[in-house]
Amino acid sequence: MAGREQKKSGGGGKKKEVKKETGLGLSFTKDENFGEWYSEVVVNGEMIEYYDISGCYILRPWAISIWENMQTFFDAEIKKMKVKNCYFPLFVSPGVLQKEKDHVEGFAPEVAWVTKSGESDLEVPIAIRPTSETVMYPYYSKWIRGHRDLPLKLNQWCNVVRWEFSHPTPFIRSREFLWQEGHTAFSTKEEADTEVLQILELYRRIYEEFLAIPVIKGRKSELEKFAGGLYTTSVEAFIPNTGRGIQGATSHCLGQNFAKMFEINFENEKGEKAMVWQNSWAYSTRTIGVMVMVHGDDKGLVLPPKVAAVQVIVIPVPYKDADTQGIFDACVATVATLTEAGILAEADLRDNYSPGWKYSDWEMKGVPLRIEIGPRDLANNQVRAVRRDNGAKTDISRVFLVEQVKGMLDKIQQNLFDVAKQKRDACVEVVKTWEEFVTALGQKKMILAPWCDEEDVEKDVKARTKGEMGAAKSLCTPFEQPELPEGTKCFASGKPAKKWTYWGRSY
Amino acid sequence: MAGREQKKSGGGGKKKEVKKETGLGLSFTKDENFGEWYSEVVVNGEMIEYYDISGCYILRPWAISIWENMQTFFDAEIKKMKVKNCYFPLFVSPGVLQKEKDHVEGFAPEVAWVTKSGESDLEVPIAIRPTSETVMYPYYSKWIRGHRDLPLKLNQWCNVVRWEFSHPTPFIRSREFLWQEGHTAFSTKEEADTEVLQILELYRRIYEEFLAIPVIKGRKSELEKFAGGLYTTSVEAFIPNTGRGIQGATSHCLGQNFAKMFEINFENEKGEKAMVWQNSWAYSTRTIGVMVMVHGDDKGLVLPPKVAAVQVIVIPVPYKDADTQGIFDACVATVATLTEAGILAEADLRDNYSPGWKYSDWEMKGVPLRIEIGPRDLANNQVRAVRRDNGAKTDISRVFLVEQVKGMLDKIQQNLFDVAKQKRDACVEVVKTWEEFVTALGQKKMILAPWCDEEDVEKDVKARTKGEMGAAKSLCTPFEQPELPEGTKCFASGKPAKKWTYWGRSY
Repeated sequence: MAGREQKKSGGGGKKKEVKKETGLGLSFTKDENFGEWYSEVVVNGEMIEYYDISGCYILRPWAISIWENMQTFFDAEIKKMKVKNCYFPLFVSPGVLQKEKDHVEGFAPEVAWVTKSGESDLEVPIAIRPTSETVMYPYYSKWIRGHRDLPLKLNQWCNVVRWEFSHPTPFIRSREFLWQEGHTAFSTKEEADTEVLQILELYRRIYEEFLAIPVIKGRKSELEKFAGGLYTTSVEAFIPNTGRGIQGATSHCLGQNFAKMFEINFENEKGEKAMVWQNSWAYSTRTIGVMVMVHGDDKGLVLPPKVAAVQVIVIPVPYKDADTQGIFDACVATVATLTEAGILAEADLRDNYSPGWKYSDWEMKGVPLRIEIGPRDLANNQVRAVRRDNGAKTDISRVFLVEQVKGMLDKIQQNLFDVAKQKRDACVEVVKTWEEFVTALGQKKMILAPWCDEEDVEKDVKARTKGEMGAAKSLCTPFEQPELPEGTKCFASGKPAKKWTYWGRSY
Repeated sequence: MAGREQKKSGGGGKKKEVKKETGLGLSFTKDENFGEWYSEVVVNGEMIEYYDISGCYILRPWAISIWENMQTFFDAEIKKMKVKNCYFPLFVSPGVLQKEKDHVEGFAPEVAWVTKSGESDLEVPIAIRPTSETVMYPYYSKWIRGHRDLPLKLNQWCNVVRWEFSHPTPFIRSREFLWQEGHTAFSTKEEADTEVLQILELYRRIYEEFLAIPVIKGRKSELEKFAGGLYTTSVEAFIPNTGRGIQGATSHCLGQNFAKMFEINFENEKGEKAMVWQNSWAYSTRTIGVMVMVHGDDKGLVLPPKVAAVQVIVIPVPYKDADTQGIFDACVATVATLTEAGILAEADLRDNYSPGWKYSDWEMKGVPLRIEIGPRDLANNQVRAVRRDNGAKTDISRVFLVEQVKGMLDKIQQNLFDVAKQKRDACVEVVKTWEEFVTALGQKKMILAPWCDEEDVEKDVKARTKGEMGAAKSLCTPFEQPELPEGTKCFASGKPAKKWTYWGRSY
């Protein structure tokens, strides 16, 4: 309605100017210049605005709504698991930060330090959390006394800061990012082991069910595990265009390393002093970047329906001499019907843009389904639905609107996953020798290879593949292991192989 | 059930030790030593843990769940107003921070500066946001071009840092705190004015409907308004025990001051260049501190049912020789019935504490309603309900459990508000002369006085009341103004009074 009123006051002559200035369309294609395409699509899709401090980005509502959708799911799931939310301070004192040696070595180069307030120097510099193990665990030591205090399961939704110097990329590698970090303590290793996998399954669901991205569950190598932890599991995604793996989220078993350093002891049921077993697990706004990279195309973002803030955009197509009022009313009614049914629908009634311009605009923003209503649709009591994922057009009777739209959104969600899986699978290459490995790496593959699981061998692979594109490393050892015939040799060392492991370049 | 199993393994001899160590009960009373009482109650009530960096506090799940309850309400309400969530960086570059002169003067002494990352000095020190006007508005300038881009309404849930040196107090004055900050831009002052009051009404509802705390809506004086803004409205609460007012939340009209500095211009409907009108508004975790101060008593926290994570705690009271199993089963069944009805209920089936110890424990944590089930209750198919707010005991037939409990929770919520209002109202003193003012201030009153509304006079009041307890200042000019008879003089200057204004000491 507002749109119609504006029509009267808005001058027709302004249309072209506005159109030009907005600069619809992308200057780069996904296949030809992936990096520039990505930077452009996150900005033009209104997810990101570049900020005046390098490596920091503004997350606009279009990105935050996706974050909130995932958050609603995950937060409810962990609450079912009796995890409770809390909030620990942003700041860490240096003494505590340095308590776990391996851990601090992993993070120290990236820690941002506050040294001044107002005009005064602080007595002691204070670190900003890169992650909160050292922030939290001194208090776990205080709170945990007896076996009845266990398990202790806390989570926080917060920002963390890692002042990285390698190439910053929106969502994927930024100096500040949002995440959740869960920190749990148990009496037994068995309980900790079980939770590691329960959480990992939630991460898989976020990627596969919400973001429609296939991931591989597996275990990180000794070299790639969390600094200070016992072992790390992860869900690994893959970006076919760049041929790089990307760690999607991690669920760590910390073992008793931190418990030892922070003296997190308890009296067990037999009255003996024991040390807790701990986990920590996190996923971050990186998830959104992976989604953009996997699904986006040369028209812009492509959002899976399950995370989109707007699932259906309804656009009036009023040809000249048509019943414009009737068409606008039908758009408003369509949105009302869909909204009533729990579908996130909006009408674009702006009168200073042509329907074609609006199509491009909402394609850029990745809205899963477009509904067009023109004079013929009005006459036939139907709407035209156009899928963002494959461009397919369908006329839908308004009588069956809700069920048809619901069905299409489900299909889009599934199709995005299927296509992404097909593309990812096409990149997987099984190799058995170093020569095959090098060839596959050159072809940007995600390489599954038999490995002896020795740290020195992984270091050696890194050293031998160093170059402009970055070295190859292990991505994960998948839990689903193909058969490993006796006598199979490690692709890199020639020693007896112990497992199949994914390798490749990565983010 | 877990409790019953533990009973077998837990030794009876440990009970006393545990009890002693936990240190139930408070060492200070609210009336005699309010400050110490407050510090103790937030810790023993498990809301806060003191942190090893002064002025920073750990918000434990018991506090965060209250925060989340308020957040769920407020977030839904602002979304109805078409406000969208976003996330801007934690860091601000010094040039931008210093752009609005009054604003930076207000915040500069409290700004924390990052000057190092890892071992390296940053080229330019970077500030941590004390609030995000200067972080956001350069981008408002970029995003807003024409009248169709308005209104722009963004909000973020985040942490901010103000490195204050005055006495830190959990929730009330901390160096880092959580809040939401809304930042909106409009074509006209009228729209901005309207929104200021809409948001203020939401803040009133948070205090009065959720936290059961009476607040006064009004406008801040020129001296007390937001640095760089046009005018500030607030909801003001009062702590009878200390006789101090406390600013509950603020909704600012920024006018066009920031728009000027950050060049936030747009082409209006007539094609002319115009400047936007802006608001910003925020409430923080301070709300939780006000709630503790207002409702807490010598037994601990008192939580209003609408924000409590646990509304009803069910405690078995198994006298010796009683049907312990039957009583435990009745507790579990009671929780199930209440949970089914949407009431947040839990059973405390721990077997290493006596019922009396549990009563004290949950009273300390402020759970609104306790349900006890003993042998006689079991026999009579009833439960005993005990209110946290007034200790009243009622036997409830299990047949009417849900409706009775719902009714009691509503009554508790209302009674907490009524009692708080009664106490607050008893502190309000209307004065007309300086002598009356000084007397009332000495009696820890919230003083309503006729005022000439001159900045110098407020400065003078501050100077004349300086002392150990802190100076008096204006709290707000209430929107509900009593009649001001012609010829009424300012209590402080003797000049003609323009309005009634609340004065007092404050947090």
